[in-house]
Amino acid sequence: MNSKLLLLTAFIGCLFLLSFRGDKKKKIIFFGDSITQMGVNKGGYIDLIKQDLVNKGVADNYEIIGAGIGGNKIYDLFLRMDKDVLEQHPDIVYIWVGVNDVWHKSSMGTGTDYDKFGKFYEAVVKKMQAQGISVILVTPAAIGERNDFSNEQDGDLNLYSNWIRKYAADNSLGLVDLRKSFHEYSVANNPKNNDWGILTNDRVHLNAKGNAFVAAEMWKAIK
Amino acid sequence: MNSKLLLLTAFIGCLFLLSFRGDKKKKIIFFGDSITQMGVNKGGYIDLIKQDLVNKGVADNYEIIGAGIGGNKIYDLFLRMDKDVLEQHPDIVYIWVGVNDVWHKSSMGTGTDYDKFGKFYEAVVKKMQAQGISVILVTPAAIGERNDFSNEQDGDLNLYSNWIRKYAADNSLGLVDLRKSFHEYSVANNPKNNDWGILTNDRVHLNAKGNAFVAAEMWKAIK
Amino acid sequence: MNSKLLLLTAFIGCLFLLSFRGDKKKKIIFFGDSITQMGVNKGGYIDLIKQDLVNKGVADNYEIIGAGIGGNKIYDLFLRMDKDVLEQHPDIVYIWVGVNDVWHKSSMGTGTDYDKFGKFYEAVVKKMQAQGISVILVTPAAIGERNDFSNEQDGDLNLYSNWIRKYAADNSLGLVDLRKSFHEYSVANNPKNNDWGILTNDRVHLNAKGNAFVAAEMWKAIK
Amino acid sequence: MNSKLLLLTAFIGCLFLLSFRGDKKKKIIFFGDSITQMGVNKGGYIDLIKQDLVNKGVADNYEIIGAGIGGNKIYDLFLRMDKDVLEQHPDIVYIWVGVNDVWHKSSMGTGTDYDKFGKFYEAVVKKMQAQGISVILVTPAAIGERNDFSNEQDGDLNLYSNWIRKYAADNSLGLVDLRKSFHEYSVANNPKNNDWGILTNDRVHLNAKGNAFVAAEMWKAIK
Repeated sequence: MNSKLLLLTAFIGCLFLLSFRGDKKKKIIFFGDSITQMGVNKGGYIDLIKQDLVNKGVADNYEIIGAGIGGNKIYDLFLRMDKDVLEQHPDIVYIWVGVNDVWHKSSMGTGTDYDKFGKFYEAVVKKMQAQGISVILVTPAAIGERNDFSNEQDGDLNLYSNWIRKYAADNSLGLVDLRKSFHEYSVANNPKNNDWGILTNDRVHLNAKGNAFVAAEMWKAIK
Repeated sequence: MNSKLLLLTAFIGCLFLLSFRGDKKKKIIFFGDSITQMGVNKGGYIDLIKQDLVNKGVADNYEIIGAGIGGNKIYDLFLRMDKDVLEQHPDIVYIWVGVNDVWHKSSMGTGTDYDKFGKFYEAVVKKMQAQGISVILVTPAAIGERNDFSNEQDGDLNLYSNWIRKYAADNSLGLVDLRKSFHEYSVANNPKNNDWGILTNDRVHLNAKGNAFVAAEMWKAIK
Repeated sequence: MNSKLLLLTAFIGCLFLLSFRGDKKKKIIFFGDSITQMGVNKGGYIDLIKQDLVNKGVADNYEIIGAGIGGNKIYDLFLRMDKDVLEQHPDIVYIWVGVNDVWHKSSMGTGTDYDKFGKFYEAVVKKMQAQGISVILVTPAAIGERNDFSNEQDGDLNLYSNWIRKYAADNSLGLVDLRKSFHEYSVANNPKNNDWGILTNDRVHLNAKGNAFVAAEMWKAIK
Repeated sequence: MNSKLLLLTAFIGCLFLLSFRGDKKKKIIFFGDSITQMGVNKGGYIDLIKQDLVNKGVADNYEIIGAGIGGNKIYDLFLRMDKDVLEQHPDIVYIWVGVNDVWHKSSMGTGTDYDKFGKFYEAVVKKMQAQGISVILVTPAAIGERNDFSNEQDGDLNLYSNWIRKYAADNSLGLVDLRKSFHEYSVANNPKNNDWGILTNDRVHLNAKGNAFVAAEMWKAIK
């Protein structure tokens, strides 16, 4: 085989590989806690994203996976990321965590120290990036929907969200700032300053409006 | 003694009693936690109020007492109010409490339930009012001075302060809203969003500026 | 009426009053938390005590009342004792509290400080005694049934129970030491060192055996 | 070179290597929290071990390192083990942790879940073993020295110590059961059931007797 023929073969091979890449489904994992665990249920935010892709006729281009486990904190994600994320070889991972890191301080005595939250969060991101995954950070939305910052964990949720925002900015990562958008939504749509019933049905987990809201916010980040 | 003479005697007696009341020093008790306990120290907010009365030449008209004990929550005030307040027969009592009710949730596991906070607070106020004391409520100022509601206990401090504000309004009681004024002061004077060093020296206890600030705010309420 | 007749009348009157007292039902209140609240249900420990009195044909001699409210700590009992106990004019009151004082430290951040537990406990007892009520103290039985003191709250339950034991001894009060008897029962009947299923069905609330056990232990204290 | 000569050379080389190994100091790291951090101070348990080696004339055989940091929990050890242990290439590592995992539940709201304690503990041990390190486990000694299991954290300390004991047994690891030996020492030497002052000077950190006691217990495990 002469060198010209070799070159041509290589060229065609490359085209083939490229076309193969082009055909390859984009694999997206939502990595999180109970909110994400419930997101795969019918009407859940992940289910809504899938339905939307079907409606748009692009469902074949994506593989959407929910990897949420109830009660998870950032170090739970760290402990199970190898199996539940890295071995799945996703293209994109949304990391949505923080509610339990803050909440479990008062409900179980086992919340996550602010500085450890950052350390484990960074370890999770770096390990994903080392595998070439595109990482999108999501701030914890709410524990209580009152809009005057009088929900018990508001201070901590703001603090931990500030860390996530800064980390995303410093490292040019995608960010879905649900903490901010939930607050703004409540300011606009919760005139009685209720504790729940706006985007959640129990102060934390999403109701129908909440799932639609989150599905839309999430998808904006990759469009 | 005819009835006219009787009336005259009664009238003179009333005048005498009124003049006696007029001569009587006004007794004011600041009832609270460690912040108030430190308030009686040289340069503390209670000490500054006393100095101010001396400077104005009206020190003889007032008796100013600090009744603060470190770590006190509302039910500590309830338990010691008979001895430390009622038996002192004050004219005016400032109730400044709430920091430990919120803080001890995470630092000791023994904070005060929101609903019990209200129950004990009301019991304290009602018992003082039954003795004819004029009660002035004070909201808990701060645990951390960041001004974007990202201090860990901000949510709870806002919630418990909301209760105090509503109770003061519903019952036409005096209110010194330090929670509000500290926040506004930090928004105006804490451009780096520091955790402490603005009006406190440790996130909670007053520095020199804080003591002057509180002394002024407190005194406004009875002027 | 001569003096002899007067004396006789008085004597008969006394007999009548005594007989009236003798006829009077003995009123017993069980004052406590969710365990007592569930105790009035069919098969609950209070229900079993009532059934037992019926079986023995002495039901007419007693009025048995359950006054338990879920989640109650010692200061909840203090806050509602006037209405739920004193106004009922019982002869005997069992005070069974402590589980939530300890448990809520980690589950809500609002447990009861050890020293405040004693202060409110004493206030409750003294106010009942001032009304002539016979008070019987009951130690908190269990949060978890492992018998090697490896249940999370064992240390605190032992500490708070020690206080109750000492207070009962110092003041010659009746004591039902369920903490001690539950532990001994578990040592004898829980060879696998299980967390629940011996006398409780969830580490805290009584199963059928637990209700029978408590009913018997309680009744011993007044026989 | 004939085969006999080759064999001889190899034999001499082996002897040389063996003698080299024999000359090599045994490197021992104590890996832990504030108790270990203070252990390197004059009179601390690590300092006492070093002095003892000097007195016995074998100080040259050992390199003793303290790697304790105040407030550390098991996942802090996990996060810093690469730098503070693995890169030091020790022969033996004592892992002494657990007090803060339990204590921080009530003092900071950020204790370690029981199941995560095991997961991180195992991760630490496995990573050390993968490098050929000999690991010795140490149970958390005490938070409070009362000997009737009435110290607030006794239940959890017993539970977490049970995990360590079982893990050591299941994996044939060395164990220094300070939890057990401290309790036995208090039963024998603390007749007044004091909270501190027996082997600690503040319920947790070692006094002079405590340092001597721990130094002796630790060293037993490698003799």
